[in-house]
Amino acid sequence: MKWEIERDALLTALTKVAGITDKKSTMQVLSHVLLEADEDQQLHLSATDLDISLKTQVDAQVSIPGRTTVSARKFLDLVKELRQETIQCELTDNDRLTVVGGRTQYKLATIRAEDFPHFTVSVARQSFDVEAGVLRRALSRTIYTVPMDEDPLSIPGLYWHPVGEELLRMVGSDGHRLAYDQIPFPAARFIGDEAGITIPRKGVQEILRLLEKSHEISLGLHENRLFAQTPNTHLSIQLLEEEFPQYDLIIPDAESGHLEMDREILIGALKRMAVVTDQSWVFVRMTVSDRLLVLEAGNPELGTAQEELPVDYLGDGFSVAYNIRYVIEALQNMQSERVRFQWLDEYHGGMFLEPDNPDHLALVMPMMV
Amino acid sequence: MKWEIERDALLTALTKVAGITDKKSTMQVLSHVLLEADEDQQLHLSATDLDISLKTQVDAQVSIPGRTTVSARKFLDLVKELRQETIQCELTDNDRLTVVGGRTQYKLATIRAEDFPHFTVSVARQSFDVEAGVLRRALSRTIYTVPMDEDPLSIPGLYWHPVGEELLRMVGSDGHRLAYDQIPFPAARFIGDEAGITIPRKGVQEILRLLEKSHEISLGLHENRLFAQTPNTHLSIQLLEEEFPQYDLIIPDAESGHLEMDREILIGALKRMAVVTDQSWVFVRMTVSDRLLVLEAGNPELGTAQEELPVDYLGDGFSVAYNIRYVIEALQNMQSERVRFQWLDEYHGGMFLEPDNPDHLALVMPMMV
Repeated sequence: MKWEIERDALLTALTKVAGITDKKSTMQVLSHVLLEADEDQQLHLSATDLDISLKTQVDAQVSIPGRTTVSARKFLDLVKELRQETIQCELTDNDRLTVVGGRTQYKLATIRAEDFPHFTVSVARQSFDVEAGVLRRALSRTIYTVPMDEDPLSIPGLYWHPVGEELLRMVGSDGHRLAYDQIPFPAARFIGDEAGITIPRKGVQEILRLLEKSHEISLGLHENRLFAQTPNTHLSIQLLEEEFPQYDLIIPDAESGHLEMDREILIGALKRMAVVTDQSWVFVRMTVSDRLLVLEAGNPELGTAQEELPVDYLGDGFSVAYNIRYVIEALQNMQSERVRFQWLDEYHGGMFLEPDNPDHLALVMPMMV
Repeated sequence: MKWEIERDALLTALTKVAGITDKKSTMQVLSHVLLEADEDQQLHLSATDLDISLKTQVDAQVSIPGRTTVSARKFLDLVKELRQETIQCELTDNDRLTVVGGRTQYKLATIRAEDFPHFTVSVARQSFDVEAGVLRRALSRTIYTVPMDEDPLSIPGLYWHPVGEELLRMVGSDGHRLAYDQIPFPAARFIGDEAGITIPRKGVQEILRLLEKSHEISLGLHENRLFAQTPNTHLSIQLLEEEFPQYDLIIPDAESGHLEMDREILIGALKRMAVVTDQSWVFVRMTVSDRLLVLEAGNPELGTAQEELPVDYLGDGFSVAYNIRYVIEALQNMQSERVRFQWLDEYHGGMFLEPDNPDHLALVMPMMV
């Protein structure tokens, strides 16, 4: 195997695949990238952690086609350090990948391509196009609610399900808060017979990374895998099998009051409250009365904070406590100038909404303090 | 106690003292800042970890003089969040420090000023002025060799001693490498009867922080303490009592060869070598021959790197291995365009020098590989 390649193009491709590799696995080959140089003057790069797989390709001048695997992290690190426009790679005797950029020569250990796990990309019968910006916005506004850790009480994935024929709703929840966003998409045809599908957190992150460099993406489903495809890159994601909870049961279908206010002003005030919160005193108390929202946080033993904000609310008083971080994150993941805060009682989740956008909802469960 | 103060001035002062406080101590008051508002319309802020103490002052409108202490970290965090030009503080009943900025009101827990440890700042009989830029340059070019951790084999401080009457030399070493820098200073009169003094690492960092905001600084010594003073701030540092080793014994007083080359080119090449180093294979081999410097690093099992650099050297060949990070750090802490690499043999430390500056030296001990 021997090929020459533009350094910047290789760097972009390696950055894409390096995130997929599994550094913690006992299978060392999963930390490697599969390199396949073919006669069509393309270098294919593949990586997989067995659940998520990615394959991308980049133009190369291939003089001897061939296949091998090298450590994705080491290869990426050294391409970063090389400043030459082109890089020469060759599989030499002793199974070393020799990488030459300018006066620097690296020899990287390889693992045979035959030992790399086989995976398929894009075998869905039907694929559906979606505008990158639309999908990115919906994913990035909901992923913050998907739990990072394995937690037996919550699902570490984003649930996609159709709303009518032409809307796809994406829902995340860690049990203490929930957010959804929905986009125009032929969701009923896409999802088919299932009620919905659940994309694991890392899969959502990889779709977001794929969207950074693309304007258009096409999605397909086949046998419990989601396929996402851009002109040069194929991503394959194993869906979660756990059933997503009946989340709509915790969204209040009635309200006893609401107010609207400037979103940034509320974020600023909450951040000032957050200074006196800590692991054990994490809540903010929000008390609404005529024309006034009072925020209180902290611990009388260490320090307290209080702020009064004028609001255009007239009605019954209401007081509730939330995890302050959850409220700040809900507000930060909106784009509207104003926010609508809507409540039923101190037992139901508080809703944070964009006043003119029915497609986004954030819900934060109250704390009993 | 009641005073009003400019927010930005208070933030600057709190940032200075917050670094000194000891958050890990079992004495909670050491994480507090002592606030003293006096009739001269000054707010004095003091912090100490018992070894290092700092006292600074800032203009305030004091309506009721008084003293108390609050958590330096909490006070700093909340002043950061407040955006108002002025902040009102008052010691209210129940011993809370009420802090009001705009619509936000904080109440911070206090500890009585009487419980704050007593310390003295600046009782030296004689003080010596030094230009801030000169001192900063010397400290920042040597502190990297001072070990971070308690290590029974090395001294965690920077050794200052006179060279003749009018030079102060500052030496750091972790046993594997050494650097010194020297500045014009009446060192013999300053140090007095001692051979030299050793400033602990944290003390050096605090002097550097003090120098960020000052053009001039004055230094004094009294009873095993170093005093550093700028117009508004007094810093007091307990010196280390351990004897600094006879470091000049390991500096070779002869050479068998040297070469000079562009410093940035060598740093770039070493950084490319570093890609294939890791915890167990940390060295770079430098081999000098006629007109050529060859760099090699890495582990044949995982990956190797090699680079040849043309140099203007003619003479006997020489080959030596160093910890690659130590060489990179030595080079990064120089300012000259070119570097002089000078060697005796593979058992003595390699010297990295600024060609036209006899006041700076970096020495790296070879590795036996």
